[in-house]
Amino acid sequence: MSNEDIEKKVREMARDAKRGSRKLASCSTETKNRILYKIADELIAQKKFIAAENNKDLSAGREKGLSSAMLDRLELNDKVIESMVTGLREIAALPDPVGEIDDMKRRPSGILVGRMRIPLGVVGMIYESRPNVTVDAAALCLKSGNATILRGGSEAIYSNLALAGIMQQVLAEEKIDPAVIQVIPFTDRHGVNVLLTLEEDIDLIIPRGGEGLIRFVSQNSRIPVLKHYKGVCHCYIDSDADIDMGVPIVMNSKTQRPGVCNALEGLLVHKDIAPSFLPVVARELFKAGVEMRGCAASRALVPEIKEANDEDWGSEFLELILAVKVVEDMDEAIEYIGEYGSQHTEIIITNSYANSQRFLREVDASAVMVNAATRFNDGGQFGLGAEIGISTTKLHAYGPMGLEELTSRKFIVYGEGEIRA
Amino acid sequence: MSNEDIEKKVREMARDAKRGSRKLASCSTETKNRILYKIADELIAQKKFIAAENNKDLSAGREKGLSSAMLDRLELNDKVIESMVTGLREIAALPDPVGEIDDMKRRPSGILVGRMRIPLGVVGMIYESRPNVTVDAAALCLKSGNATILRGGSEAIYSNLALAGIMQQVLAEEKIDPAVIQVIPFTDRHGVNVLLTLEEDIDLIIPRGGEGLIRFVSQNSRIPVLKHYKGVCHCYIDSDADIDMGVPIVMNSKTQRPGVCNALEGLLVHKDIAPSFLPVVARELFKAGVEMRGCAASRALVPEIKEANDEDWGSEFLELILAVKVVEDMDEAIEYIGEYGSQHTEIIITNSYANSQRFLREVDASAVMVNAATRFNDGGQFGLGAEIGISTTKLHAYGPMGLEELTSRKFIVYGEGEIRA
Repeated sequence: MSNEDIEKKVREMARDAKRGSRKLASCSTETKNRILYKIADELIAQKKFIAAENNKDLSAGREKGLSSAMLDRLELNDKVIESMVTGLREIAALPDPVGEIDDMKRRPSGILVGRMRIPLGVVGMIYESRPNVTVDAAALCLKSGNATILRGGSEAIYSNLALAGIMQQVLAEEKIDPAVIQVIPFTDRHGVNVLLTLEEDIDLIIPRGGEGLIRFVSQNSRIPVLKHYKGVCHCYIDSDADIDMGVPIVMNSKTQRPGVCNALEGLLVHKDIAPSFLPVVARELFKAGVEMRGCAASRALVPEIKEANDEDWGSEFLELILAVKVVEDMDEAIEYIGEYGSQHTEIIITNSYANSQRFLREVDASAVMVNAATRFNDGGQFGLGAEIGISTTKLHAYGPMGLEELTSRKFIVYGEGEIRA
Repeated sequence: MSNEDIEKKVREMARDAKRGSRKLASCSTETKNRILYKIADELIAQKKFIAAENNKDLSAGREKGLSSAMLDRLELNDKVIESMVTGLREIAALPDPVGEIDDMKRRPSGILVGRMRIPLGVVGMIYESRPNVTVDAAALCLKSGNATILRGGSEAIYSNLALAGIMQQVLAEEKIDPAVIQVIPFTDRHGVNVLLTLEEDIDLIIPRGGEGLIRFVSQNSRIPVLKHYKGVCHCYIDSDADIDMGVPIVMNSKTQRPGVCNALEGLLVHKDIAPSFLPVVARELFKAGVEMRGCAASRALVPEIKEANDEDWGSEFLELILAVKVVEDMDEAIEYIGEYGSQHTEIIITNSYANSQRFLREVDASAVMVNAATRFNDGGQFGLGAEIGISTTKLHAYGPMGLEELTSRKFIVYGEGEIRA
């Protein structure tokens, strides 16, 4: 396809999505839920078709020499389909944020002013490999009244188109414009370039994938982008922390799923508790196969800790490695987090009331926690139901983004003939 | 100044602002309010200094041949200073949004999750002429815990620097880093270019001014921008509207201040009520000197209405001109608004319960009103206290932006040793 053809097609898709989104915005909750349940049923009914299309991607991937980890993520096996089906039904069961009205107040002029929750319009999703994102993201957007344009990894194109086809079929049956869920039907990178310029028709871009993808998207987009680059999460062990509480929290945060963004990457230990805490936690960490890289003070207490170099501070290891630093006091810990954290998840283990309050107030991260594992920073765990991504910038949303974060609020006014004096 | 010097200086300003914003974020409400009251007092005390600096701008403006309207807007006379002082005191009296916690819920895991309101960080304001914006914007940002970098019109540079100097003097006296309120001290356009790229240190850009300025900013900014291009507001007169209510609302919306963004620009009248409504409203409008430009149907009813051309539909006149169209029904009105509206303010005059609800739900604008004048779309009228601008896009804020819109929310978690299963 020529660049002009690509541009023409993507523009057309965006325009169609915008048109469809207008009607979808006032679609009843009942209809939206029925569509979600039907899509779930169809995914099960059309398992064989999905597998066949997915196989095209898998064979192409094998030929291209994709790693077995990548092929794994690409595979739409029964378990993955099961999880998409569960996800769809869970999203259907969530309350619909659209139309909610709050902050209704009578003003001195006599008018009654409130705010009504409304969809954003059209959301562009740009993501890598896992084709299940196609269904998860489209379902969250649909439930919140938004149209979606999906652009998955080129290695998953057949799988993504198959899933979109099933969803569009259900939409058409329910007399909803199928343009509200579209997958860009070609893999040329130019499609993304065009998509990112269509600010008239697309309201939000959410990139999900590696740092390279996210940087590319945010540097080239004329449309607002919600993203997080990385999760460099820290745990600060305060001087009077409960060691029996701190050790399991550190272990859980570091080892439960080391490859995810809310895994622990840095441990800061108050100097007064370091002699009693560090040897205990180190024994457990070593037992779990974690490599510790620390400052001189930590190595003086636990000689098995390797010497950290400058790059270890603030590094997102995503594996069984943990940076360790003994700090003078909480000021130093907060300053360190300000410098090396990624505004994702920061936790304190403490028994001091004053320090817990100060940490919650002063640390700048999308989630700040006292005496709980970093792993809780997650839409499901926080009660959002499901998440479409995590934002580590503060505009519009900060932290896990659920249905509400896919909406905005307009002002509504009930008057009885008021005019402005 | 060379481009390199400009770049160096603006980068330094942004870095300083970011550093200052970290401390300001946890500054007490009491301190922030004391600063605001003190600035108000200083503006009065230093009236002569302000007048002298303002005079430099005024003479330069006269020499450059600025229009008398522009010179008017530039002037910091007693009345304008009075209004800045009142504004400062009003902002001091508003509740501080920072630190507010809501949505606190116990989750099945045992953790207690809530959301704490926090400042955005550093706000870049880019605006034209009126130097009072310098104080208004800085005060709103300060109260919401944000640092501001201000870049006003080049014709107001002495006035803006004088006002910033006074504010910085008060900040220093209160031991707050003066870098939290800074005016770019030169007028070279390159300063704006640099500012718009500093996404690491600046969290939000708010442009205020003509459409040219706003387009330039939003097309060149790597930082999120909150803006509105224009206000093309409509009033739809439903078939069973109360004529005695509709006429004053149209008059107030169109004529009270025709030059502002929430003034009425288009009137849509249901065909059934047009014969009784149009002649009455036209008489009043003509009396007030309003020129009406209408469709054939409207001209058949009121021959004095001029023939509208294609450009009149959706035009932001900002003067005593009103586009008039007779519509078949509410569907046509809603469709027309979708095509020609600017997502600013849309109103319906009706006595139909069903139509009022449908209009509120289906019309996409930052403020949708029933039986009240468009002129109410304003931060003060809506109870936000004061506004830093109006957003006509849905990301982060939609409509007038007050203190709350200058904040975000982070998740906070109170745990008692919970780990993730």
